[in-house]
Amino acid sequence: MDLTVTFIGTAASVPTKARGTAATLIARGGERWLVDCGEGTQRQLLRSGLGLVDLDLILVTHLHGDHFLGLPGLVKTFGLRGRERPLRIVGPRGILELFDRLGGVIGRTPYPLRVEEATAETVHETDGAVIESFHTHHGVPSLGYAIVEQARPGAFDVAAAAALGVPAGPLFGRLQRGEPVTVDGREVRPDEVMGPARSGRKVALSGDTRPCIATASAAEGADLLVHEATFLESERDRAIETGHSTAREAAALAREAGVRLLALTHLSSRFMPRDARAEAGAEFENVAVPRDFDQVELPFRERGEARLIRSDGDGVVVGREEPGAAGPA
Amino acid sequence: MDLTVTFIGTAASVPTKARGTAATLIARGGERWLVDCGEGTQRQLLRSGLGLVDLDLILVTHLHGDHFLGLPGLVKTFGLRGRERPLRIVGPRGILELFDRLGGVIGRTPYPLRVEEATAETVHETDGAVIESFHTHHGVPSLGYAIVEQARPGAFDVAAAAALGVPAGPLFGRLQRGEPVTVDGREVRPDEVMGPARSGRKVALSGDTRPCIATASAAEGADLLVHEATFLESERDRAIETGHSTAREAAALAREAGVRLLALTHLSSRFMPRDARAEAGAEFENVAVPRDFDQVELPFRERGEARLIRSDGDGVVVGREEPGAAGPA
Repeated sequence: MDLTVTFIGTAASVPTKARGTAATLIARGGERWLVDCGEGTQRQLLRSGLGLVDLDLILVTHLHGDHFLGLPGLVKTFGLRGRERPLRIVGPRGILELFDRLGGVIGRTPYPLRVEEATAETVHETDGAVIESFHTHHGVPSLGYAIVEQARPGAFDVAAAAALGVPAGPLFGRLQRGEPVTVDGREVRPDEVMGPARSGRKVALSGDTRPCIATASAAEGADLLVHEATFLESERDRAIETGHSTAREAAALAREAGVRLLALTHLSSRFMPRDARAEAGAEFENVAVPRDFDQVELPFRERGEARLIRSDGDGVVVGREEPGAAGPA
Repeated sequence: MDLTVTFIGTAASVPTKARGTAATLIARGGERWLVDCGEGTQRQLLRSGLGLVDLDLILVTHLHGDHFLGLPGLVKTFGLRGRERPLRIVGPRGILELFDRLGGVIGRTPYPLRVEEATAETVHETDGAVIESFHTHHGVPSLGYAIVEQARPGAFDVAAAAALGVPAGPLFGRLQRGEPVTVDGREVRPDEVMGPARSGRKVALSGDTRPCIATASAAEGADLLVHEATFLESERDRAIETGHSTAREAAALAREAGVRLLALTHLSSRFMPRDARAEAGAEFENVAVPRDFDQVELPFRERGEARLIRSDGDGVVVGREEPGAAGPA
């Protein structure tokens, strides 16, 4: 099952010529989830090459304008397109009040719009995965989110099954589902013909936050941690004051959490992306600093590592880059 | 005095990959006025090459989302930049109520934000020009706007003044200000040494509307009419139903009003811009269909005609095009 993260907007607070405000799209199998929706997200989706994806779920990390001002336009545009399927928007405490205000601006939608405060840790359950929220530290109610896949059964060893006399057919299926079977009066257990369980993938997204234990815990062993890096160490005081992180802090957290790939986002225009990468790279090996429309592909672990796929800034893939490799940040 | 119109967003209702939602920037001398502010306008300004202009006045044509959803972000970004000078936002009936709702979303601004309903026809007076509003027909309270320059005095004829015995010096200035002077006991009248008054320039912007007399009247003899063309004639029924205009209707209005250049905007993605140009061109000669970031420069009439300046889509001027000339629409 494909799992891809597309960086739709990677600027902090205000857009720049090259970067839109916060939005990240996660595609897993046939599902599409958007984390944050800064102003201009609907157009960024069009420009990304993905098109105006029929999202079912939008996860909002916190209620600062650069993370939600794209919602009214997106919600209205879905309506203009004659959408009928429900749209669910989940966010921190305060999101219901926000939509009370926005209601008069948005007007009626021709499809059910469900806005919810994330009261439980698990905000979404789907085939083989859950989305969990966790409380972060940003001075206002704020959440991070983690997509956590369940482990998959190990590979079925056809040769081992044959050697134990199991005939190809329905008995294979029962063993694959974890049931013992009896062949010629002898019981064959699943663990005799199945490899070890294969771990699921995990993607964690910090939202805007100081480095915190909740993020480290949610990101434990993650294939990908998308963490904000609004500042460099030279402005660490401002990071503390405004509830943000430095590139180095994000990298230290990624290292401690045993993350496989760290992607830095929410970049201030006060520094160059390559400086954030250099600062984080001194602390943690596998750092990517995506541009808007870049993607991270996450293969199943037994098939390879997560890797950054560069866009040319207009939605067309022009190259693939190994994490940590030299090259433009 | 320079007068330039920059097309910041030219899409109808929803953005496309190439076109943002409604926004037009008018620069006259040192003043900058924005007409409409669709979602993403702050970033479009950055992308246009003009940068995030310190606007003093934003004119809103009507309260559909694609014309105002960029306001909260722009207003907040001005605040983040430490703006102190006041910002005035003028719009139709309902704009105060809209800002009551948006107030809780925008929060406090560190500069005075003045929101006004356009109750009088004249919404702004400045050095040698006024901005007038007019009521259009869009099914909701809606306004168009016209920038109308006053006539300038005619050219001073130095040779004629000398022939009448007027010595160079203070008497020239009095004649230029329209006062008669006495030379050797004989009165010299201004009309003996001044050419005919030179007409001021006029730019009219329709906003979203059916073709209407108010627009034709405001655009009478205009150097530039920016008129919406949401539909082609093939969908005229829908234009009537939704309170919009077809490209042909806009062109017929421009012809009747004696407009010098018509720029079609608010283009639906259901047709190609060149089709709008062809349809309008059959009715009226001087039609331009600007892309985002294209500009119209309006020299004083005695110095030339308004002309479209093409951008390469990233804010850099790549060519100039005569109105009505063959070429890409």
